[in-house]
Amino acid sequence: MNPVSPFRQARALLFGAALVFAANAFAQSDPLPSWNDGTAKKAVVAFVQATTTQGSPQFVPPAERIATFDQDGTLWVEQPLYAQVMYCLDRVPALVKAKPELAKSEPFKTVLSGDRAAIARLSLPALEKILAATLTGMSVDEFNAEVTKWLAEAKDPRWKKPFTELTYLPMQEVLKYLRANGYKTYIVTGGGQDFVRTYSEATYGIPPEQVVGTAGGTKYGYGKDGKPFLTKEPRLLLNDDKAGKPEGIHLLIGRRPVAAFGNSAGDQQMLEYTKAGDGARLAMLVLHDDARREYAYGPAQGLPASKVGTFPPALYSQAQKQGWTVISMKNDWKRVFSFE
Amino acid sequence: MNPVSPFRQARALLFGAALVFAANAFAQSDPLPSWNDGTAKKAVVAFVQATTTQGSPQFVPPAERIATFDQDGTLWVEQPLYAQVMYCLDRVPALVKAKPELAKSEPFKTVLSGDRAAIARLSLPALEKILAATLTGMSVDEFNAEVTKWLAEAKDPRWKKPFTELTYLPMQEVLKYLRANGYKTYIVTGGGQDFVRTYSEATYGIPPEQVVGTAGGTKYGYGKDGKPFLTKEPRLLLNDDKAGKPEGIHLLIGRRPVAAFGNSAGDQQMLEYTKAGDGARLAMLVLHDDARREYAYGPAQGLPASKVGTFPPALYSQAQKQGWTVISMKNDWKRVFSFE
Repeated sequence: MNPVSPFRQARALLFGAALVFAANAFAQSDPLPSWNDGTAKKAVVAFVQATTTQGSPQFVPPAERIATFDQDGTLWVEQPLYAQVMYCLDRVPALVKAKPELAKSEPFKTVLSGDRAAIARLSLPALEKILAATLTGMSVDEFNAEVTKWLAEAKDPRWKKPFTELTYLPMQEVLKYLRANGYKTYIVTGGGQDFVRTYSEATYGIPPEQVVGTAGGTKYGYGKDGKPFLTKEPRLLLNDDKAGKPEGIHLLIGRRPVAAFGNSAGDQQMLEYTKAGDGARLAMLVLHDDARREYAYGPAQGLPASKVGTFPPALYSQAQKQGWTVISMKNDWKRVFSFE
Repeated sequence: MNPVSPFRQARALLFGAALVFAANAFAQSDPLPSWNDGTAKKAVVAFVQATTTQGSPQFVPPAERIATFDQDGTLWVEQPLYAQVMYCLDRVPALVKAKPELAKSEPFKTVLSGDRAAIARLSLPALEKILAATLTGMSVDEFNAEVTKWLAEAKDPRWKKPFTELTYLPMQEVLKYLRANGYKTYIVTGGGQDFVRTYSEATYGIPPEQVVGTAGGTKYGYGKDGKPFLTKEPRLLLNDDKAGKPEGIHLLIGRRPVAAFGNSAGDQQMLEYTKAGDGARLAMLVLHDDARREYAYGPAQGLPASKVGTFPPALYSQAQKQGWTVISMKNDWKRVFSFE
């Protein structure tokens, strides 16, 4: 046996341990690997450290760690149409089969024609009529089953992938990073609360009870077997958009969030409300400025006014004035999707 | 040194260890020490074991472990008046000071008179007028501060103790036992959601986001300092009683509970809805049959119809038919309050 061998062994062991240590330290120090180093990433990390380090002047007790996320355009792709609107359009044939009298009346006639240009031109009230007809009038269980079935089959027109795969990897990392630090993460969406709840747990790790969305009433009744069930009604209880977002947060959560993430004018009030609380607050806006990897429809893109609508220049100014952090998809995100 | 001494020491250590082991085993085997052995206690323990033991045919995944509790009469005393109604009556003088024109109009005039018999005779619409006037029209923060202040000072007329001390110890044990086994515990109350949320965490260990109650709308606006705030409006969004309970559960939780606890006709639909789900289900009704330690106003007390109203004989029959477990305060509870 070579007398230096034990020394070499020890050195090898130490070297190995150092590697493992370095790998762990790196993993610990980079909870957001899909983010480029920059203002946005730094803002998230600094916020989490300030609010979760015992003894920090900005420490937030675990019970008060509430973070709210808009969904469409903030957690997943919202172009060319909200996934929920595609669901509703896809439901029209089955709806007409059940109620044949609808085939001759607008806007169902246009949807059935398959004329994409005509469908794209449908007015907001026409669209609302389609949403009401396809999202209500059935039991909660039937609705959940229909949405689950649709999501398993439907594909996004550009990437030819299920919608639930079109979530932004950097935002998924933020969700996990916040949860690992004791934050309860909520979705606060203008979309349908029941719609989003069908996939929120599998897609984002967010349970249904942590989804706040536009919600209608339900009606309690009994089936032929005597078993009670709930029917979805067209009566609107909560329009969870713009001022409706803080109102919905109060109704379902009852606490002011400490952190909020959005991407459009519909998120303005949620971000203001979050930021207006005491202590450390994080308000972030996703800017869609990456036409190559996703879409560009932010204020700095020189797009026609119709496309800028969801993130008007006024919102950009407000972000700068009120200390909200703008996330540039193009510059802040190393990767956009997990399948890249 | 005595040669037997090490042996004695070892024996003493073993004996000590055995005592600690026995104490732990006892603590583990009796999560409900304030309950007498009987059908009700056995039902709770059997349900928890069946739904949380890996491999059990009735195993419920942690994410689906939702248990809902009515509050008034189920978790704390509801006689002679709901605490929230006492709060509203106590708020009338301050309300009239702010709006002197109310002093001459009913029902405020009667409340101000201090004539207890006349106040007790107020009609339901009169009471609703008082509730609307005292629970709305101020900011959410002002309301929380007022309720917190009142709860710190107000005393129950019989026990001369703060209302938050009049919770039932056996039910507090059930809450903790369920939570220790991965259940999320919710309050589902006909009382005001915002009212109960002010003390639910300190009193029951239930955070505000796990309180479902009767809820009005709020209105988002800006103060003189430009800061946004929410104002409580008289517009009713959710009447969380009877059929409103499952509707409220769907709106705020989005899952069917696995266990539910109530004490009155207002809880009938919540219990039915819970029990109608697949697998193991626990539905329990607290029967107030203990006039000495609390109150007796259940169906078996030979009380006048007016007193039986909250737990009519029909509900008792339904409990027996549908396999709900009736909890007799008199027979099932060793202790009622923690201060006994």
